[in-house]
Amino acid sequence: MPIVRTSGRLPDGRAIHFYDADPASPRRELAPPGPATTPPASQLRWDAWLDEWVVVATHRQRRTARSDVCPLCPSLGEIPGASYEVVVFDNRYPALPAVTGDPGPAGGHCEVVSYTDDHEVALSGLPLSRVETVVTAWADRTAALNERPDVAQVFCFENRGAVVGATLAHPHGQIYAYPFVPARLRRLAEVADARWDAHRECVACVTVGREHEDPSRVVVTGEAWTAFVPYAAHWPYEVRVVPHRHVPDLAAVDPWERADLAHVLRRVLGQFDGLFQRPAAYVLSWIQAAARPARPAAHVYAEIVSPMRSPADRKHPAAGELGAGMYVNEMSPERAAAALRGEGR
Amino acid sequence: MPIVRTSGRLPDGRAIHFYDADPASPRRELAPPGPATTPPASQLRWDAWLDEWVVVATHRQRRTARSDVCPLCPSLGEIPGASYEVVVFDNRYPALPAVTGDPGPAGGHCEVVSYTDDHEVALSGLPLSRVETVVTAWADRTAALNERPDVAQVFCFENRGAVVGATLAHPHGQIYAYPFVPARLRRLAEVADARWDAHRECVACVTVGREHEDPSRVVVTGEAWTAFVPYAAHWPYEVRVVPHRHVPDLAAVDPWERADLAHVLRRVLGQFDGLFQRPAAYVLSWIQAAARPARPAAHVYAEIVSPMRSPADRKHPAAGELGAGMYVNEMSPERAAAALRGEGR
Repeated sequence: MPIVRTSGRLPDGRAIHFYDADPASPRRELAPPGPATTPPASQLRWDAWLDEWVVVATHRQRRTARSDVCPLCPSLGEIPGASYEVVVFDNRYPALPAVTGDPGPAGGHCEVVSYTDDHEVALSGLPLSRVETVVTAWADRTAALNERPDVAQVFCFENRGAVVGATLAHPHGQIYAYPFVPARLRRLAEVADARWDAHRECVACVTVGREHEDPSRVVVTGEAWTAFVPYAAHWPYEVRVVPHRHVPDLAAVDPWERADLAHVLRRVLGQFDGLFQRPAAYVLSWIQAAARPARPAAHVYAEIVSPMRSPADRKHPAAGELGAGMYVNEMSPERAAAALRGEGR
Repeated sequence: MPIVRTSGRLPDGRAIHFYDADPASPRRELAPPGPATTPPASQLRWDAWLDEWVVVATHRQRRTARSDVCPLCPSLGEIPGASYEVVVFDNRYPALPAVTGDPGPAGGHCEVVSYTDDHEVALSGLPLSRVETVVTAWADRTAALNERPDVAQVFCFENRGAVVGATLAHPHGQIYAYPFVPARLRRLAEVADARWDAHRECVACVTVGREHEDPSRVVVTGEAWTAFVPYAAHWPYEVRVVPHRHVPDLAAVDPWERADLAHVLRRVLGQFDGLFQRPAAYVLSWIQAAARPARPAAHVYAEIVSPMRSPADRKHPAAGELGAGMYVNEMSPERAAAALRGEGR
């Protein structure tokens, strides 16, 4: 499926990228940009007790709230034109770029990924070809951002639903390009690298093999990707979507694998919506290799977690999770997988 | 202040400990225990991707909900007698003890700490002497649990308010005694140990000294403890309560330091309640040394965090925090400290 990217600038100087698969889509005409605006900067602070960066972004208290006019709907908000397929543009209220009071890495970049011009649909409800366009946009932006000297780690994600803090209802995700590797991604890389160095073993490859042998936690098996509930799931409903091939990031995923990912991802998200027969609140995180150096152990995957145990009951991470760092999961991972597969509904 | 501990067993075999400071308190008469019951066991599962344990505790879905009769009120619930001061007893729905499917540490222990027999008061609203009794109970249980062979780490905490998942409104906290050191406590110990080994420097001692030099983030200064908002706070309102003396846990805190802690802690919790002129939702975590081996870098402290930015607006940790591991704080730590001190109200 050939997808055309058209890049330009918004009147205020922010970058915008249209991704169009439909040959009938109008040619994107972008007005000449106005004077480039400097995005508001956040402050990076070093937490010497946990060895990690924290962003203090006081300007984000002003960001668009749910009650305002939707900035992602065509003709209403920030995106020029009467319609669009997938569009990526610089966030008006970025957590990054950051300046730093401590000696440390400044920079970074935040983008919004709108999946469709239709306010009322979800990623799981889009046509397969459109989900493939979203995957392509993630891959293309990952490759482009990884080239920037101020970017150490690209992170594509979606927070869906007010209970996970989404401030806009329009179906969309975000991309953070950090000027350092954030703590959890660093931890995952350290654990994967240690196993690789000791045993020449990739934890993702080994796990996918085991889940295929005993499919009790598998929720969708594709040609190139498998989705399963982790053996040690932290959340009531949690799924990893992992490619069978050992590839470090979405940019390294082949076109036919992207098409299969679109199929598997759409089915998994549909399973989440099917759980309680309503749009599910979830957090979707893409775990990708850092921009550099190349790591032989790196294996890309998506994590999808929902804090909801039932339509009215959510898990609240509290002292055990946030203070001590041990998660208590009150849902059996095997039962969660069966529920996601639709068994017993 | 002499505090008398009376230990015994509940009719179902669970252990209970009364802590009484008032000489007029009735002598505790405990009925002989019934046949010892085995608490329901959870399953410990090893997360090989993050190198950490997760507890799968499906039996906890049955635990007492807010709508039931309060199990901590005298004459209504689990605690014998018509009144009490501070009482600690085995949790009826423990996340631990755990059995393990993987080779790993089984065991552990979960206790409830009720601060008072009065359902309607908060820790911040108790008399100073009672807060000191609570501190003494934490210290005494820490020492006792650290002696157990199946305990590697004692963690005293309080989750207050429905928005952080508290299922009971009665003022109380909990103690988890883990059969391993949970991931975040392990991380904090590793970072502190690395600095100690490299520079013979304690991060807590150094930080308390700096906060005294520039008190812009200090919220309460006591004789033996100082409470301040961390420079790299992760949450809108976050306070560390740190002893001036380099001591590893509450059991090593001297009686006069405990009295000062009661004073500082009560004031800080009152400041949280004062923020929005209502009982604050917070998570209180005691970061203590592991049971063994002794670590010269260990320095005990409490963390108190609230997810609320305003009475109606909470921070939701989402993909950036949960997936990547970088916290974005939209509140300036210096402004949070001023608000906690009551400036500008």
